[in-house]
Amino acid sequence: MNENKYPFVSDPRDPRFLNLRSLQTHQGRSRTGLYIIEGIRHLARAVEHNAPVHSVFLDHSALSNPFGQRLVRRIRQRGVPGIRLSRQLYRDLTLAIEPQGVGAVLRQTWHSSEQIRPERNSLWLAVESIESPGNLGTIIRTAEAAGVSGIFVLGPACDPYDPAAVRATMGSLFSQKLVRCSPNEFNQWTKSNGVAVVASSPTGLIDFRALTYRFPLALMIGSEKQGLSEQLVEAAGFVVRIPMRGGCDSINAAVATGVLLFEMAGQQTGVEPGKRTLGWRRSSRMA
Amino acid sequence: MNENKYPFVSDPRDPRFLNLRSLQTHQGRSRTGLYIIEGIRHLARAVEHNAPVHSVFLDHSALSNPFGQRLVRRIRQRGVPGIRLSRQLYRDLTLAIEPQGVGAVLRQTWHSSEQIRPERNSLWLAVESIESPGNLGTIIRTAEAAGVSGIFVLGPACDPYDPAAVRATMGSLFSQKLVRCSPNEFNQWTKSNGVAVVASSPTGLIDFRALTYRFPLALMIGSEKQGLSEQLVEAAGFVVRIPMRGGCDSINAAVATGVLLFEMAGQQTGVEPGKRTLGWRRSSRMA
Repeated sequence: MNENKYPFVSDPRDPRFLNLRSLQTHQGRSRTGLYIIEGIRHLARAVEHNAPVHSVFLDHSALSNPFGQRLVRRIRQRGVPGIRLSRQLYRDLTLAIEPQGVGAVLRQTWHSSEQIRPERNSLWLAVESIESPGNLGTIIRTAEAAGVSGIFVLGPACDPYDPAAVRATMGSLFSQKLVRCSPNEFNQWTKSNGVAVVASSPTGLIDFRALTYRFPLALMIGSEKQGLSEQLVEAAGFVVRIPMRGGCDSINAAVATGVLLFEMAGQQTGVEPGKRTLGWRRSSRMA
Repeated sequence: MNENKYPFVSDPRDPRFLNLRSLQTHQGRSRTGLYIIEGIRHLARAVEHNAPVHSVFLDHSALSNPFGQRLVRRIRQRGVPGIRLSRQLYRDLTLAIEPQGVGAVLRQTWHSSEQIRPERNSLWLAVESIESPGNLGTIIRTAEAAGVSGIFVLGPACDPYDPAAVRATMGSLFSQKLVRCSPNEFNQWTKSNGVAVVASSPTGLIDFRALTYRFPLALMIGSEKQGLSEQLVEAAGFVVRIPMRGGCDSINAAVATGVLLFEMAGQQTGVEPGKRTLGWRRSSRMA
């Protein structure tokens, strides 16, 4: 393979390796505006969505998948710089239990709220202070599947480019519009663009299923522990609740986001209540 | 505190500690029928639900919460045996980043399918081969919140008593009826009790929102990677799909379970389509 032309690094004090490793920290990512992805699926989706690939890093001993090898060859032919790492150094850069031998450094992509003009029938998500990066990543993946047009990240602590978040997105990060802004700026954006806002809270008065949603619509999600800040709850048109039984006072934030977004997406795409016409084709005794 | 009467263990070769540690493995749990919980919330919910507490283990240096201290005192007064551990040994037994200094060994509770007579309006869950124990725990927590009456665990590899699963249940494990059985036995149970069965699959033909569900109802969920086995899909009355957009081919198994169960629970409790009467109280311009 021609990837052999990439220089080989095995010294853990090599600055090229140290630069990569610094991207595992929030500070390193903020300073550079870069982040790391690992694995063939992630890299393939990054390329597919024209995400800005800054460089690649490889562990030849783990890169046995032919599709992965072709992918790397194509990237190298485009002139993307890269290095080969020893197995040990490569392992230091990934959370994967079975690393796939190919990773990349990408440039973070952030949009400004002013650039975003919501379409009439669109659905948006705003997240505030999600505790775990893994949960945040699962939320991004869920939002993508539900057809969300973009995600507003309202807390400075929330980092979708954290390696654990990136991993949990399963490659759905690259097609999402991400906006980092203050709660205030988000409120401004929804008002000036006529976006209806629904907040989710365990203390909300309205069952989320009892509402006919109006679009463009933004759902606001807070942390499992603290929920949304008051400022955001007050700015919402409605505060909905997922009714819980069995002594449960909360569910996982990513699960809650999925439950709410897919209800909204169902109304958005016209799977209307009245269209629920299917019954059971056979009796239970026959099932 | 009188918990000082519990013997103190600091030697990592002490058999009392080794017995505890063996419960972190699937083998150790299977052999003994026991499992470990950690933290005040979990222990309080175990006691509240009369879960069979076999013994407790403490780290006094971390047990500063007065509620936790009272809880331990009450448990000791009931004659439950226990040991005190050094901070290091205690830490070896928990996944918590900030251990709360109180843990317990509980007896696993399994029901036989023959014991279970489903109520007319009840909702059930069956899980097959969920990959990660954390995901399985989140699924159990979600099922509890959605009002599920019990969970059938169909694969031998699926262990709800794995420490990572227990932790993710957030204490909702103790009130759930758990049944371990074969797919065949589950099919027998649904047939002989008139339980309608819905399977979830990315290749399902029916949008999950387009169906009017009939109760008693059981939802079957498979792994993210492999989905449900053919045997189970064939036994289902309907195979539903969560429609996905944005190039996503799957969502997290716990999120999918939540999306489906809360739709079913909504129909079960009578938040009927026709009752969706609420609109927006103010125009978007005012929001």
